[in-house]
Amino acid sequence: MKVTVIGLGPGAGQDLTGRARAALEECDLIVGYTAYVELIRPEFPEKECLATGMRREVDRCRLAVEKALEGKHVAMVCSGDAGVYGMAGLVYEVAQEYIPIDIEVIPGITAACGGAAVLGAPLTHDFAVISLSDLLTPWEKIVRRLKCAALADFVICLYNPASHSRPDHLRKACDILLEEKDGDTPCGWVRNIGREGETARILTLRELRDEPVDMFTTVFVGSSETRVIGGKLVTPRGYATRRG
Amino acid sequence: MKVTVIGLGPGAGQDLTGRARAALEECDLIVGYTAYVELIRPEFPEKECLATGMRREVDRCRLAVEKALEGKHVAMVCSGDAGVYGMAGLVYEVAQEYIPIDIEVIPGITAACGGAAVLGAPLTHDFAVISLSDLLTPWEKIVRRLKCAALADFVICLYNPASHSRPDHLRKACDILLEEKDGDTPCGWVRNIGREGETARILTLRELRDEPVDMFTTVFVGSSETRVIGGKLVTPRGYATRRG
Repeated sequence: MKVTVIGLGPGAGQDLTGRARAALEECDLIVGYTAYVELIRPEFPEKECLATGMRREVDRCRLAVEKALEGKHVAMVCSGDAGVYGMAGLVYEVAQEYIPIDIEVIPGITAACGGAAVLGAPLTHDFAVISLSDLLTPWEKIVRRLKCAALADFVICLYNPASHSRPDHLRKACDILLEEKDGDTPCGWVRNIGREGETARILTLRELRDEPVDMFTTVFVGSSETRVIGGKLVTPRGYATRRG
Repeated sequence: MKVTVIGLGPGAGQDLTGRARAALEECDLIVGYTAYVELIRPEFPEKECLATGMRREVDRCRLAVEKALEGKHVAMVCSGDAGVYGMAGLVYEVAQEYIPIDIEVIPGITAACGGAAVLGAPLTHDFAVISLSDLLTPWEKIVRRLKCAALADFVICLYNPASHSRPDHLRKACDILLEEKDGDTPCGWVRNIGREGETARILTLRELRDEPVDMFTTVFVGSSETRVIGGKLVTPRGYATRRG
């Protein structure tokens, strides 16, 4: 009948929008990656849930589409936003292979916005979002994007800065950025945004290079205008200088 | 006592997160730009509200900080996210001039995520967010960012694509992007995201150049991988090709 792809926000519960909550209440079945289903299940204890493991993205989307074709209203849950490195794209791709079904996407707070709020206001001006995972993207393409983002003087938000199989991607990325950017550029990272054990740190790009991060961390690299104000990471947009 | 800067999401009401709603219920006073205060006032009819006009950003933040210093819990509301071209940065800047107060930022759904959900899933891979407003940013800097974003093959999300005083900024931006990108690149725009009169269109970059847009419109320009699938704008991340 229908697949609604829902962004849960970084911490699920309190980060859910009213629209996302209403769709979860209305659906017949919640489908998602095990960790995200576990995050949301306590809020909707009476709902049927189907969880699939890591790297089973295509299977998960097929399952959602096939359950919808059986007549169910399926809620496919994603952490953060449903679209930003989320499952919304793949649901559309997979659904092509079947008879047409109704697909709706309900956005959620992505880690760029959630993490920025913890650090202060680093994204008040133009920014780029880049994943450092080369599982699905050639590393050369990631390098080119980092170089161009530095040349553009974007604030840069890095998703998937590291994992067990690629512990040194953040260091490599910082080295590329340091070719264009000052080592004193204010940066920050947030781990477990909106969840238990949320931690954050503000530091320089030079320090960031050697910082241990993991797959639950989102990293922010300032533009030439980003500053630390009152212990927070802030990219002024220019209002204050316009009016004094 | 405290300023909580709150992102209302694109359409306010149903796009509010639980955390944003709780903060609005708890606050003593809502401060914001007139249009955004009007958007949220019906949901919290008993709250004291102070609205200020367009381009009064610094005054608005001073008002919020000064009311907090009087002992109030002030909710400063922004459309979309509190940080992405929002007031969070300026609140930190303005607050420096006073004795320290507690400032909290509660993120909201930004137009990039809200608009993407309407069009399909254009932001499933790396992207850049650029404002075409040159009120606070030199046009040369905007041009450089557009060029670099095209070279990086980012999906590009454009905020403030036009206004009365700069009706041709989107055309100029498209001409810059067309130097690097194919005229057939799938693009889209959404107007009044999540509000009454929401409209959207998917079209090519060549067509986008001549499209009439306004300040309530958010524009999406695809990367080389963005496609139209089932009438929706989708940037595949590569899951489907990895696993067939």
